[in-house]
Amino acid sequence: MDFSTPAPLEAVLAGVRDVMTAFVLPLEALYASRGSMRAIGPELQAARDHVKARKLWCPQLTTELGGMGLPLASHARVSEELGRSMLGHYVFNCQAPDAGNMEILALFATPEQRERYLLPLVAGDVRSCFAMTEPDVAGSNPTWLRTTARADGDDYVIDGHKWFTTGADGAAFAIVMAVTDAGASPHARASQIIVPMDAPGLTRVRNISVMGHEGDGWASHSELRFEGVRVPKANRIGEEGAGFLIAQERLGPGRIHHAMRWIGMCERSFELMCARAASRELSPGKPLAHKQAVQTWIADSRAEIDAARLMVLHAAWKMQREGAYAAREQISIIKFFVADVLQKVVDRAIQTHGALGLTDDTPLAGFYRFERAARIYDGPDEVHKSLVARRILRGYGVESS
Amino acid sequence: MDFSTPAPLEAVLAGVRDVMTAFVLPLEALYASRGSMRAIGPELQAARDHVKARKLWCPQLTTELGGMGLPLASHARVSEELGRSMLGHYVFNCQAPDAGNMEILALFATPEQRERYLLPLVAGDVRSCFAMTEPDVAGSNPTWLRTTARADGDDYVIDGHKWFTTGADGAAFAIVMAVTDAGASPHARASQIIVPMDAPGLTRVRNISVMGHEGDGWASHSELRFEGVRVPKANRIGEEGAGFLIAQERLGPGRIHHAMRWIGMCERSFELMCARAASRELSPGKPLAHKQAVQTWIADSRAEIDAARLMVLHAAWKMQREGAYAAREQISIIKFFVADVLQKVVDRAIQTHGALGLTDDTPLAGFYRFERAARIYDGPDEVHKSLVARRILRGYGVESS
Amino acid sequence: MDFSTPAPLEAVLAGVRDVMTAFVLPLEALYASRGSMRAIGPELQAARDHVKARKLWCPQLTTELGGMGLPLASHARVSEELGRSMLGHYVFNCQAPDAGNMEILALFATPEQRERYLLPLVAGDVRSCFAMTEPDVAGSNPTWLRTTARADGDDYVIDGHKWFTTGADGAAFAIVMAVTDAGASPHARASQIIVPMDAPGLTRVRNISVMGHEGDGWASHSELRFEGVRVPKANRIGEEGAGFLIAQERLGPGRIHHAMRWIGMCERSFELMCARAASRELSPGKPLAHKQAVQTWIADSRAEIDAARLMVLHAAWKMQREGAYAAREQISIIKFFVADVLQKVVDRAIQTHGALGLTDDTPLAGFYRFERAARIYDGPDEVHKSLVARRILRGYGVESS
Amino acid sequence: MDFSTPAPLEAVLAGVRDVMTAFVLPLEALYASRGSMRAIGPELQAARDHVKARKLWCPQLTTELGGMGLPLASHARVSEELGRSMLGHYVFNCQAPDAGNMEILALFATPEQRERYLLPLVAGDVRSCFAMTEPDVAGSNPTWLRTTARADGDDYVIDGHKWFTTGADGAAFAIVMAVTDAGASPHARASQIIVPMDAPGLTRVRNISVMGHEGDGWASHSELRFEGVRVPKANRIGEEGAGFLIAQERLGPGRIHHAMRWIGMCERSFELMCARAASRELSPGKPLAHKQAVQTWIADSRAEIDAARLMVLHAAWKMQREGAYAAREQISIIKFFVADVLQKVVDRAIQTHGALGLTDDTPLAGFYRFERAARIYDGPDEVHKSLVARRILRGYGVESS
Repeated sequence: MDFSTPAPLEAVLAGVRDVMTAFVLPLEALYASRGSMRAIGPELQAARDHVKARKLWCPQLTTELGGMGLPLASHARVSEELGRSMLGHYVFNCQAPDAGNMEILALFATPEQRERYLLPLVAGDVRSCFAMTEPDVAGSNPTWLRTTARADGDDYVIDGHKWFTTGADGAAFAIVMAVTDAGASPHARASQIIVPMDAPGLTRVRNISVMGHEGDGWASHSELRFEGVRVPKANRIGEEGAGFLIAQERLGPGRIHHAMRWIGMCERSFELMCARAASRELSPGKPLAHKQAVQTWIADSRAEIDAARLMVLHAAWKMQREGAYAAREQISIIKFFVADVLQKVVDRAIQTHGALGLTDDTPLAGFYRFERAARIYDGPDEVHKSLVARRILRGYGVESS
Repeated sequence: MDFSTPAPLEAVLAGVRDVMTAFVLPLEALYASRGSMRAIGPELQAARDHVKARKLWCPQLTTELGGMGLPLASHARVSEELGRSMLGHYVFNCQAPDAGNMEILALFATPEQRERYLLPLVAGDVRSCFAMTEPDVAGSNPTWLRTTARADGDDYVIDGHKWFTTGADGAAFAIVMAVTDAGASPHARASQIIVPMDAPGLTRVRNISVMGHEGDGWASHSELRFEGVRVPKANRIGEEGAGFLIAQERLGPGRIHHAMRWIGMCERSFELMCARAASRELSPGKPLAHKQAVQTWIADSRAEIDAARLMVLHAAWKMQREGAYAAREQISIIKFFVADVLQKVVDRAIQTHGALGLTDDTPLAGFYRFERAARIYDGPDEVHKSLVARRILRGYGVESS
Repeated sequence: MDFSTPAPLEAVLAGVRDVMTAFVLPLEALYASRGSMRAIGPELQAARDHVKARKLWCPQLTTELGGMGLPLASHARVSEELGRSMLGHYVFNCQAPDAGNMEILALFATPEQRERYLLPLVAGDVRSCFAMTEPDVAGSNPTWLRTTARADGDDYVIDGHKWFTTGADGAAFAIVMAVTDAGASPHARASQIIVPMDAPGLTRVRNISVMGHEGDGWASHSELRFEGVRVPKANRIGEEGAGFLIAQERLGPGRIHHAMRWIGMCERSFELMCARAASRELSPGKPLAHKQAVQTWIADSRAEIDAARLMVLHAAWKMQREGAYAAREQISIIKFFVADVLQKVVDRAIQTHGALGLTDDTPLAGFYRFERAARIYDGPDEVHKSLVARRILRGYGVESS
Repeated sequence: MDFSTPAPLEAVLAGVRDVMTAFVLPLEALYASRGSMRAIGPELQAARDHVKARKLWCPQLTTELGGMGLPLASHARVSEELGRSMLGHYVFNCQAPDAGNMEILALFATPEQRERYLLPLVAGDVRSCFAMTEPDVAGSNPTWLRTTARADGDDYVIDGHKWFTTGADGAAFAIVMAVTDAGASPHARASQIIVPMDAPGLTRVRNISVMGHEGDGWASHSELRFEGVRVPKANRIGEEGAGFLIAQERLGPGRIHHAMRWIGMCERSFELMCARAASRELSPGKPLAHKQAVQTWIADSRAEIDAARLMVLHAAWKMQREGAYAAREQISIIKFFVADVLQKVVDRAIQTHGALGLTDDTPLAGFYRFERAARIYDGPDEVHKSLVARRILRGYGVESS
């Protein structure tokens, strides 16, 4: 085994850290004070331009498409650095759901789709969204989706109800998961179809108020209604009925990115916790750092973050070598393992800060609110645990329940 | 032992539940949609008028002052019912910090203070705040307060910096904890002094943004500056140097109210969790309630909430019979025990709701954000645990560390 | 609510504590050094004689039968005192499974059964056992029992395989749960039948080695084989097919006794933990008690033990007033709630003792080993949690899964 | 990063697994039934002879000394395989404390010490012990040791009281940590001195009864008294006062071996848990494996064991490349991290087995009893957590408390 980081990757990471410190972290307070993504639009654009100039743009994409061409395990390390701020991935144009959409389009787009949808995304000229989740269907069982795309000549006519569509506000287009053949076997029912956000019949009902905020732009989650939305069949990505297969493609690498983003957040929280413990005095000359409870939180957090990172890097290494299918157990495991570590570390960092930790004077309260979702999205942790166990138990002769 | 509820108390509780259902719960959606306490002012007032008419006003106060005259353990039961909504206590005029201020003033006010400050509070005509916490001093060690009240003839001149002063926005007056004799023994340094909010030199710097919200009116926490604020010595409550002694008085009953309020929130969350488990289908005919993970959350929550309630009622019973000093171990214990149960129950209820639990379409996300504070205010849990243990260990001959 | 202890009960408890201190605790070291129950037989007998002389014998039985006639909630308090030592209940003749057997026989025995089996048990002249658990059947689902009692004229002929039959070694008779009608509805299949231990065809295969020990006498758990064991039908307790119904009768009070016994063990462990923290020096003048980690264990343990006791006493109060059926939710809850507290408290007490906690120089290592069973016997905790949840969820319209 | 296992190491591991399956696992039942190490002496010897013949003897030692010459990270992998049985390390002659003693002697022995003490150990002809822990001194603070070695001409005269001296029963010699200069700085007070077990004045008081067993031979922990025990100064290992320095040398690799041994135990428990879940039926055709609670245990265990292994292998890799001092944070972390995983995995495996898990019919009850020590020996987890945190906090400017 070799746990070392090659020098070229170290150089990339150093560059990323530079940009984060100089351009991204300062945007956090601006965002907090101005209160919306739109209000910091020019500053975000300037940061993105700088990233492009530094050739750190789209680290996850091939160089041919204009990205850095980093292999998965290396991009994982970059993703950790970016995850230190909730704005990091956006500034480097590798934010969800656009990164996943680019990935799918890079693999499956027709030349026309590539020209019209992928390249503007890569350039950062537009944003997109991915409309899969539905309010009436358990996210853990997407084969029950109710949104339909009915074939009508050369078109599909789409009807349905979606929500938690991240970044729909201001997006140029959505990739919509819709049932094209209700009679097919569960995993062959749905297709992924590109729908321009200004298509007639597509209504953005609201930005859902999540943990107290409706958000705006990329930083929002919308409820969408599709009522007789007509798009050409040429907007379908891949084969009809391949919706879940294609969704799987994006899931593996997406999980790695997310998990490393969480670890970036953990490291930021950890540093804030240590700094607070060191500087807060309980009485003159007696810092909070002398309390054993705080020491225990620091040691446990250090151990858990290190363990989480090794788990994710191992999963990325395995996926890179053997493919997403071979690594599916590891991919499920990092979902719940890292989400759990994230929640514990952020909670301890808040407790160490006392009342200050509840305020928006630090990024911790934001991590606390918005990353509660980590244990829910992409399927709740409980579902992944059952999946992992059932796969293991098949090796012991157990038929699935 | 007798765990039964006397019939007259049952009748009171039934009345309170009526009002909660008919008047308070409907205000929640209104508050969420209009976005501020001020914007629902008339509706709040109507609900309060109804409570007065039903003779359920100020359950914690003596009948002589216009309250219901409930003993502590009975008010505890009422407090649970009110706690089901974050607006409950406010509508019944027993919300913190006004309830604590009334309690202190009822015990220690001079006739003039009573007339000018207590009676308008009891009537619900004004609100007040309690300015103790300071940003530069660990809340767990209030003897290090830096705000000073310098005697100058018949006046005090107050200088200092406070924050997390709940309800300062719109309050008529603050009760300020300030050092009147820095040379005294730690617990005799400070006094409590009434300061009108419009006193020259008193600035409300901001409503602190807490978990994403600045809030307004009673539902806010302010940062305050005192710069040469002059008030007559007649505004002091009780003896000079008695600030901590008086603060202790409010702490015991206040802890009971808070803990029972948390239990009300637990019960509301519990019901939402069960209802969601029953209604959410994973596949046709297969509700979430069939999953063992959810069953475990329900059973653990039921057990923990029941345990928490018995603990608080026992502490109230002991405090009522033997006084707050005799019950100080129980009072410290319920602080951390119930706060822990609250956090776990709300977390499970959110997880049971999936994405919906993150939205503001249910009260859960609000409980999650705002009650993270439960483990911090009135001294972080860790401090209370050490206090309890050190008191116990004195019985084994251990001098405090 | 009234949490006070009546004076007569206080007097009983004081008497019990006396005997425990003077007679029972000293037997522990003797048992450890001599290594078997048989080897301390005379000393145990002397202690039992003393208990009889003090009129503290069989606290759970009616005075008419020669017991103390304590109501359930009062016996619960006695049971806590006895639980401080693993020998306590035995010395007072209220140990499982004899206590449960006496209870059943007191309710259902025929005059002959009473004379021949119950009275010698009450007198302490013989011991008994209860053979229900089978190695091949999940304890959580006793309706699947495989041991059969075939009617043959006036006799039953019993065939089957039992294990974890506590106290079979040296018992005079067993009460055996056996299927008398395999075709009946699940809960009407089995009957309880008295079988003398010397009946031909009944073999005690072994005392099972549990956590390193086979034990002996009452302090052992046996594996039994029944091969054509013939007993008269007159040995059946109650109606044919009433086995589960009768088993339920013993379960409720039995759960209360066990839970209070665990609380006694918790209190003993708690005291040992505090005493160790106070006396162990990390460096001269710096006791272990000064470490915040230990303080946290002490505070959490204090809180949890107090909560557990209130839960059990509330369940006992409810069962006494409304019957076991009405209190079945509380009875299931205390099973898993108290077992969890027990495991945590004993674990912390051991950790506080360091290497000493692992030795048999204190009772902690014994509590640790033998009470791991608490989370398993009478149905594993997980089963009880599902039971409780399903009962609650029926109120929300959920059919059982 | 590269997580692959080189082919030669795979071959070694396959060989070790062979021997474990064919020779070591069958010894477990024999040991259980015969009840002592002495009683299975011939069988143990046969297994050891086989290991020698297979050239798998002393994997941790240099080939020059007759070992396999495996680097630390590779021996770690072997150690996991051996750890699947409590007898594994013994059969391969790399059991604690002999492995550590060989390590020290290999580094520091004089030619005479090498000849007389090291070579017979390596050959497996004798066993040794390491007498450091004292009953009256907190293990976490060994600088307070009270055992003294007074210089007297060419001899030391040793007086003191030790306990938890593993394997003293039957050992040929002890390495004793004793204070040679009480006036020196704390870490320069003690020296390590070889004392033959038959030296006059050295009494083995008892094998301490630990978790119910005194054990025998290597599988025991003794209490020792030194009363005027005289040994030549030539028996000192290394310089006078170098006792702690030398002890540090053995600690780092020892921690790796222990942690991997625990992981071997985790894997064994995991497999037993899965096999039991698969084979145990709750009702016909419905295996325990279908229960979500069990699935959750399996998934969590899989995740935690994988994380633990990566942590230990990373620590071994770092220690190998940069030395024990550079890796001291990782070494402390794996101590508490892996011990915690071990306790959780064994506990879940027992719960999955129900009553069977409490018996000695599986190795689980043994793991449960004897590995409770994992959180205590080599310094309790709490001490390591504080150490790790204080080291981290120094980077934030905090002086140690």
